[in-house]
Amino acid sequence: MGIGLGMSQIAHIEGRLQMRQGFLDDAVVAYESLGKLNANTSNAVIIFTGLSPSAHVASTESDPASGWWEDMVGPDKPIDTNRYFVICINSLGSCFGSTGPASCDPATGLPYRLTFPVLTLEDVANAGAKVLDHLGIERVHTVLGASMGGMTALAFALQHPQRAEGLVSISSAAKSLPFSIALRSLQREMIRRDPAWEAGNYPIPGQGPAMGMRLARKLGMITYRSAQEWETRFGRERTVDREPDVGPFGIDFEIESYLDAHAEKFVGSFDANCYLYLSRAMDLFDAADHGGSLKQAFARLGLRRAMVIGVETDFLFPVHQQEELALALEPHVEDVRFARLDSVQGHDSFLVDMERFRPTIASFF
Amino acid sequence: MGIGLGMSQIAHIEGRLQMRQGFLDDAVVAYESLGKLNANTSNAVIIFTGLSPSAHVASTESDPASGWWEDMVGPDKPIDTNRYFVICINSLGSCFGSTGPASCDPATGLPYRLTFPVLTLEDVANAGAKVLDHLGIERVHTVLGASMGGMTALAFALQHPQRAEGLVSISSAAKSLPFSIALRSLQREMIRRDPAWEAGNYPIPGQGPAMGMRLARKLGMITYRSAQEWETRFGRERTVDREPDVGPFGIDFEIESYLDAHAEKFVGSFDANCYLYLSRAMDLFDAADHGGSLKQAFARLGLRRAMVIGVETDFLFPVHQQEELALALEPHVEDVRFARLDSVQGHDSFLVDMERFRPTIASFF
Repeated sequence: MGIGLGMSQIAHIEGRLQMRQGFLDDAVVAYESLGKLNANTSNAVIIFTGLSPSAHVASTESDPASGWWEDMVGPDKPIDTNRYFVICINSLGSCFGSTGPASCDPATGLPYRLTFPVLTLEDVANAGAKVLDHLGIERVHTVLGASMGGMTALAFALQHPQRAEGLVSISSAAKSLPFSIALRSLQREMIRRDPAWEAGNYPIPGQGPAMGMRLARKLGMITYRSAQEWETRFGRERTVDREPDVGPFGIDFEIESYLDAHAEKFVGSFDANCYLYLSRAMDLFDAADHGGSLKQAFARLGLRRAMVIGVETDFLFPVHQQEELALALEPHVEDVRFARLDSVQGHDSFLVDMERFRPTIASFF
Repeated sequence: MGIGLGMSQIAHIEGRLQMRQGFLDDAVVAYESLGKLNANTSNAVIIFTGLSPSAHVASTESDPASGWWEDMVGPDKPIDTNRYFVICINSLGSCFGSTGPASCDPATGLPYRLTFPVLTLEDVANAGAKVLDHLGIERVHTVLGASMGGMTALAFALQHPQRAEGLVSISSAAKSLPFSIALRSLQREMIRRDPAWEAGNYPIPGQGPAMGMRLARKLGMITYRSAQEWETRFGRERTVDREPDVGPFGIDFEIESYLDAHAEKFVGSFDANCYLYLSRAMDLFDAADHGGSLKQAFARLGLRRAMVIGVETDFLFPVHQQEELALALEPHVEDVRFARLDSVQGHDSFLVDMERFRPTIASFF
């Protein structure tokens, strides 16, 4: 399928993995670990990712390719692998080694495609807990996640109150709001309405609705950054290499060229059905489901420390959602810190604004 | 084509209409007028519209259907047709009576489609000036526009400095920024990549790429309103009438149902090629093109009064752009007012937040 496991390790889940709405048999979860687990297994940090990354969070000797958070994780970096045993999880439902809609259903020998059960971030979190079982880790020093990963980290802390001492939630939220649901719903519709989607049955997982994936990725890129950043970076600059043969409505401005280059890279590198399942899982997440209200849900948390980080220019997960999350954690967690960063790169700032994010994350660890 | 002229009047443009990049022969401009022109023709108000409306701005005896700005224009309303002679222009390039890509090219007897010249808002403004010629009006009391119409109104004032005494610019800008260019570029790509677009040659103008138009309209709706409004209005409410037979990724939340209903209404009511031309015209607009800089361009303005209105929750035409426009007008226009409104309905507030917009507009007239 052209989409690889890389050097990830695999945890086989014994027996049946119960999901919120269904189950999986013989499921696997791909993960990568960095650093060394100490003798009393107290130095583990588990990282849940956003929608699209693999478990390859940072380069190692065995896999020297740059990871998606290369500047944050490693020896002497803010999440210091000289001190911590870092485990990054490829989300259940994704296509980089973990079982997902592109994987083979052992019952039929065919890819699950749309027969994959409805996916929730609670399921993704539980699959992460299975990796800890596999590694013999009862309790982690910190569960950390950004974007979708922040919701998954919260789902982990809610479902396994004794298994995490600390939580770091970055540019995330306790629930999805209608604005981000609308954007993701439209992205999914772009994919679903591409005739090459074939109602989910495109022949080769990882291929299929290239047009829909291209459009969805462009909308993603628009929502991941900020208007301010683009004004400074691109302004009204015209592109030098105009797209040929597309008539009067092709690429003219630099901003159009930038989006096109990013979309081009994405198409064929992520499976469309996996994208649909993970995207919907974000919409479905509401931490208040774990109690009659957010307050009741958070009363069950077993955390001792939490850090919530938000970015002012993020309009996909607006900073007021992070502020609300920090406030809601306060009565139930001894040590809660809230960092409001003035990065200009919007939602994606945690990936690029190392000047602000590195010291903030380092201060927690 | 299922798209009508309604009760609009038609101004035939004598001879050749020179455009910035081409020309049109035998072009027409549809308009509607309300109220009475006074003896010295000093009470005319010309209104340029956003991308999608027709010239039917408000109901009249001859056309009692509600107009797109029904609460703002009429007898004893903020733009009072007892006092003013109000002319609303259907933009050149649109499909509600004015010549556009869906119109017949007299040279071939076939619709222009993509042989229509590149459209700019300067051309739309000049076509409006031709309507004034047709009506025998040399100078208007006010040229007014919202959204794309605000840019067109500014293009009118820049190109015809002696023909307007006042300018009202609502939720608009002196130029398009990369964020809005990116959004519109993606909307156009949704249409262009719909196989039914047929490289612009779908057989019946007004029909064709229904899927692309549907997606583009949904993205439009998302950018026309605000996250705040939707949070209050929809929250995470689930829809009662779920879309049947679309599998696990169909309509589940109320916000998805709302977008779908709006998109459904739009498809088939606007021509896709017209949409593409008008959308691109917005990207191309930069008032600074009328001089080496905005300052030099504005030095040629013949306005005596101007009002600029912006809305805090507008992220398509952010309020800082209106503030900049007002500041840039100040050295060159005797009386400049800037109103920053705290409406929650985003870019579309001028159509719906009458509580704030009616008194603001009334204060100018």
